Amino acid sequence: MTISEYLESRRALVDRTLDQHLPAAETPPRTIHEAMRYAVLGGGKRIRPILAIAAAEACGADPTPFLQQIAALELIHTYSLVHDDLPALDNDDLRRGRKTTHVVFGEAMGILAGDALLTEAFSWLSAPGGNLRAIHEVAVAIDSQGMIGGQVADLEGGSTMDRLEFIHRNKTGKLLTASVVLGGILAGADEEKIAALRRYGHATGLAFQIVDDLLDIEADAATLGKTAGKDVAQGKLTYPALIGVEAARAEAQRLLGVAVDNADMIQGPNYLSDLARYICSRNS
Amino acid sequence: MTISEYLESRRALVDRTLDQHLPAAETPPRTIHEAMRYAVLGGGKRIRPILAIAAAEACGADPTPFLQQIAALELIHTYSLVHDDLPALDNDDLRRGRKTTHVVFGEAMGILAGDALLTEAFSWLSAPGGNLRAIHEVAVAIDSQGMIGGQVADLEGGSTMDRLEFIHRNKTGKLLTASVVLGGILAGADEEKIAALRRYGHATGLAFQIVDDLLDIEADAATLGKTAGKDVAQGKLTYPALIGVEAARAEAQRLLGVAVDNADMIQGPNYLSDLARYICSRNS
Repeated sequence: MTISEYLESRRALVDRTLDQHLPAAETPPRTIHEAMRYAVLGGGKRIRPILAIAAAEACGADPTPFLQQIAALELIHTYSLVHDDLPALDNDDLRRGRKTTHVVFGEAMGILAGDALLTEAFSWLSAPGGNLRAIHEVAVAIDSQGMIGGQVADLEGGSTMDRLEFIHRNKTGKLLTASVVLGGILAGADEEKIAALRRYGHATGLAFQIVDDLLDIEADAATLGKTAGKDVAQGKLTYPALIGVEAARAEAQRLLGVAVDNADMIQGPNYLSDLARYICSRNS
Repeated sequence: MTISEYLESRRALVDRTLDQHLPAAETPPRTIHEAMRYAVLGGGKRIRPILAIAAAEACGADPTPFLQQIAALELIHTYSLVHDDLPALDNDDLRRGRKTTHVVFGEAMGILAGDALLTEAFSWLSAPGGNLRAIHEVAVAIDSQGMIGGQVADLEGGSTMDRLEFIHRNKTGKLLTASVVLGGILAGADEEKIAALRRYGHATGLAFQIVDDLLDIEADAATLGKTAGKDVAQGKLTYPALIGVEAARAEAQRLLGVAVDNADMIQGPNYLSDLARYICSRNS
């Protein structure tokens, strides 16, 4: 299976799981369920759950029994986007090529739908088949010293390399890392493999963010599906802004090498290396 | 020990646990940790964790080993207040006699601090000593078909008894019920006791909300520590508005009887009955 076929098949699996487990739009109160489904089911590459699936498969497990837990990662990612897009935060009207959730459903529902997606994620993670350690791994990746802390630091700005690394490691890196580690934990992998998955996730997460910064400069709104050039326009701290485009590209390549090395440490043929390469070469 | 002494000692226990486990204000990024501590440590009766402690004790367990899990209930309650108070929702400036979190730290930080408290709660619930079933119990109590669903229905309004019961059961009742059930699960109680705790929580939760509605009419702002008469001013659906003050009082008393009956089904001398009576007689 080529990496494109792999991405396509696993994304279909994730989309099916999300659609199946999200409350139906008719469930009362109807508005919030419509908003949750709008936010989650409006496209998206599903990179976090696909990474978790690939990690579980790399550790020799069939992820079918814990797809609900894995799909929770996408709920978390979506909640973070819905709240980031709010007027009081990034104030974005466009996301994944569509109007943002609060633009369609109003600001109150944007806040509550984000809250509901985050809560639903922990409901899915703790459903039968779940694992206490996996839940803790995800929670600490996205708390005030993880993803939310990264978002706060991003809002506050700053101009040092330390600051930038803090933002990237926390805002994007920790949830991506938790995603692959979650796959390993649910697959029952030993500590050595989980450590390799953690290093893989760390490198891939940072590379992912650098590529995202580069994309913001290079892509136009049509390709990217969100307002392009916005980071630069807002004077946000980015890798290319701090060290230059070429050095940023080189750093992403170096991190890709680390990711591939660690992917190779995990037994059996697996798609983790290809996924890291895909993440570092994507153009949308 | 009188109920006042009991409330005082258990509240001190909860406050100590919260202070101990919340990230220090100096932890970077500093602002969000200051906001989280401001929101949580600014007073509050700690009814939910105290109910969980009383439930665990009623089932014969010393709650000390799982105080962190129990304190997570207060993080969840606080997150819901912080988000409810936001301008896009209830737009309240005053809470527990102090300025609301977004008034002090700004709207973006109000949103993010609420997110962080909810996330932190699941981190605490999944810390060593946690329990998968307990986490799931809490998550489904506060999702879009639980507490958040109740908040949405409350915002949407309506004027029927069915609607009012939906709001009360979801907005307040389910988390209170989950609190006592959590105490029972962590104490290792059998299914019969957990069922009695669930009935106790259900009755107490509904009584709690009715008393809260009555307080909104009767108390003045000084006693209540929040803007009084606001529900009435906003035309919100309340029990006294729908069935009258006297009938609302009678319904609260009937529910109290159900709560006490179920508390008595649980072995040993316990404080659950006294807690239910306290909740139905509080004046602040």
